[in-house]
Amino acid sequence: MGSPRRLLLLSSSSLHGGGYLEHCQQHIQSFLGQKVKRVLFIPYALHDRDAYARTAREKFESLGYGLDSIHESCDPVEAIRKSEAIFIGGGNTFRLLKALYDNNLIHEIRKRVLEDGIPYIGSSAGSNVATISINTTNDMPIVYPPSLQALGLVPFNINPHYLDPDIKRTHMGGLREGTMLLVEGDKATLQGATGARLFLRGKKPTEHEPGTDFSFLLTDSNPLNP
Amino acid sequence: MGSPRRLLLLSSSSLHGGGYLEHCQQHIQSFLGQKVKRVLFIPYALHDRDAYARTAREKFESLGYGLDSIHESCDPVEAIRKSEAIFIGGGNTFRLLKALYDNNLIHEIRKRVLEDGIPYIGSSAGSNVATISINTTNDMPIVYPPSLQALGLVPFNINPHYLDPDIKRTHMGGLREGTMLLVEGDKATLQGATGARLFLRGKKPTEHEPGTDFSFLLTDSNPLNP
Ligand SMILES: [Ca+2]
Ligand SMILES: [Ca+2]
Repeated sequence: MGSPRRLLLLSSSSLHGGGYLEHCQQHIQSFLGQKVKRVLFIPYALHDRDAYARTAREKFESLGYGLDSIHESCDPVEAIRKSEAIFIGGGNTFRLLKALYDNNLIHEIRKRVLEDGIPYIGSSAGSNVATISINTTNDMPIVYPPSLQALGLVPFNINPHYLDPDIKRTHMGGLREGTMLLVEGDKATLQGATGARLFLRGKKPTEHEPGTDFSFLLTDSNPLNP
Repeated sequence: MGSPRRLLLLSSSSLHGGGYLEHCQQHIQSFLGQKVKRVLFIPYALHDRDAYARTAREKFESLGYGLDSIHESCDPVEAIRKSEAIFIGGGNTFRLLKALYDNNLIHEIRKRVLEDGIPYIGSSAGSNVATISINTTNDMPIVYPPSLQALGLVPFNINPHYLDPDIKRTHMGGLREGTMLLVEGDKATLQGATGARLFLRGKKPTEHEPGTDFSFLLTDSNPLNP
C-alpha cells in the first residue's frame, strides 16, 4: 500500500519579478482544494518570522485560506498535530532545517504527511527539506544543523533554483525557477512553465518538460535513491 | 607577542582559464622563499587524490619545490608534524573540512602554523578552512563534517570566488578570483589583480584594491570577529 502523501514542491516563491507565489497560485488552490480551511506556515528559513508570516498570510488569505504561523504558537509540535495543511517557505535551507530539528518537528511532520496525508507545500528551501537530505542546496551554511538528513517525504534530492549551465551533480532533480513537482501518493508529475533537469549517477543529465511523469522516482529502487 | 603565522590565501587556483596556479606563481615563490625545500600537499577537497597530487606536484616542482601528498602517508598527523610548509588545494569545502577532522589534523595544523610558523598556502576551499569557519562557503554540503568550525588561522571568514553582484552577507571578506591575502604575523595585505569586498555587519560593503593593509582584521577586536 502506498503512502497517502500529497506534496506540491515549488522551485521558488516568485518568477521573473512577479508577486509572491503569483506564478503558482492556481496550482496551490487546486492542490489545497475547498476542504482545507487553514494552512500552518513555517517561516523558519528567514530571520524575520513576523514579516515573513505577514507576507504569506496576505497571499493565502487572498486565495481563500486562513494562515497560522508556527512561530506564534507556544507548542509547535502540537501545532503540527492539529494542522490541516503545511506550507514551508524558502530562505536559507540550513537555518530552516536546524529550526525543524531544534523544535522537534521532523518526526511529527513526517507522520502528518506520510501517514495522515495532509497536504504539504514547500517553496525553495521548503522543497529542499521535503527530500531525503539538504546535500544539494546552494545555500550558505550560516548555521550548523544536527544533520543534513531532512524530512524524507520523497526518496531523492531536489536542487531548487536550478540554473544552467551544467555543474557536476549526481542523483538529483534540478528544478528551474517556475517549476513545481506535484506528488499524489505514488504519482509524481512535473508542473509549471520551465522544466527540470534530472541527474542520475553515472548518466548524462536529461531535460524534462512540464507534464512529465516522474513517478518512477518515488519507488524505493528509484535511480535517484543513493 | 603576535603569532609567527605566515599565510598566503588564494581565492582560486587559476584565473581566466590560465594554467594551474599560474597567476600566483611568483607570489608562491616569494612567499616560500629558498629555505623551504618540500611542501606537504593536502588534496582532500577533491575526490581523485592521486590525480590532484600529480597536478600539484608538477606545478610545485616547476617552481623548484618537492611535494609530498598527505594521502600517500600512512600517518597524516606525523606528516603535518614533519612538514616544512603546507598547501591545501581547493575543491569542495565540506569534503575538505570533514577529512581534516576525520584524520585528526585540525589541532596539529594549527600548532604548526600558529606556533611553529611554517608557511601555509590555501587555495579556494583551502583558504576557506584557514578561517574561523566555513559558514561562508558557496559549495554544496555533499558530506557532513562534525562542525563548521575550521582551522581558525585568522579570526574572520573568507568567501573565495566572490562574485558580484551583492548578496546580503555579513562579517566576511569576499575575495574575487585572482585575489590573495598575504598574512605575515600581525600584518595582512591584499595582493593580486582584482581586489576584494569587505562585509561588516550592519555596514555598507566596501571595495578594496590590491595593496590594501587589512591588518586590522587580525586583531581580536576586529570588526569581522563574530
Ligand atoms: Ca534557497
Ligand atoms: Ca570552492
